[in-house]
Amino acid sequence: MSPYLPIAGSLDLLGDKWTLVLVRDLVTGKRRYGEFLDSPEGIATNILAARLKEMTDAGLIDKHPYQRNPLRHDYVLTARGRDLLPVLQAFCRWGNRHFPGSWVPPESFMKPRSR
Amino acid sequence: MSPYLPIAGSLDLLGDKWTLVLVRDLVTGKRRYGEFLDSPEGIATNILAARLKEMTDAGLIDKHPYQRNPLRHDYVLTARGRDLLPVLQAFCRWGNRHFPGSWVPPESFMKPRSR
Repeated sequence: MSPYLPIAGSLDLLGDKWTLVLVRDLVTGKRRYGEFLDSPEGIATNILAARLKEMTDAGLIDKHPYQRNPLRHDYVLTARGRDLLPVLQAFCRWGNRHFPGSWVPPESFMKPRSR
Repeated sequence: MSPYLPIAGSLDLLGDKWTLVLVRDLVTGKRRYGEFLDSPEGIATNILAARLKEMTDAGLIDKHPYQRNPLRHDYVLTARGRDLLPVLQAFCRWGNRHFPGSWVPPESFMKPRSR
């Protein structure tokens, strides 16, 4: 099997940097559209909507209605999405090593919150 | 310190998926422009040139002349670039777990080749 296949396919699933930013948000307890918009990276509303749909289609997150009228959803990581935590953690360790003073996720990050 | 800073800054440094694809290429021994173009992901020449410049500017790779007339460069990972290997490895493990049959980098990946 070619050593190149998994990188191409999996990276396409992740899309761009916003997916990992949203995984970070979700694992720190954010669930709602407005909460994601509040993150300091300043994701644009159209990009947020597109990423949430792509991540749902890719099986990284599930959406659930929390209000019926008007209909509103919140979002939680699936098992596949939670399994991205080691990637996030390796990435943050790299940032911390090469840009000292930046933040590293604590081990508690690896224990996803229950709903 | 905000927990959000390192993700934003470090992810901007990584750019998009092509950076990790090139890290994979570099760690498997590719060094030259034509070799990167040959990878099955099919990176476009203008994107490759832009990424190589950005990765050089970000301190992820160094370029060295290997031919003088005409001038040609090859590229190698710096210490900062090699330190992305755990990110690449975590990422490939995720791909392998959720898309069985895909490839996981062997431990020898973690020992960068000498020039």
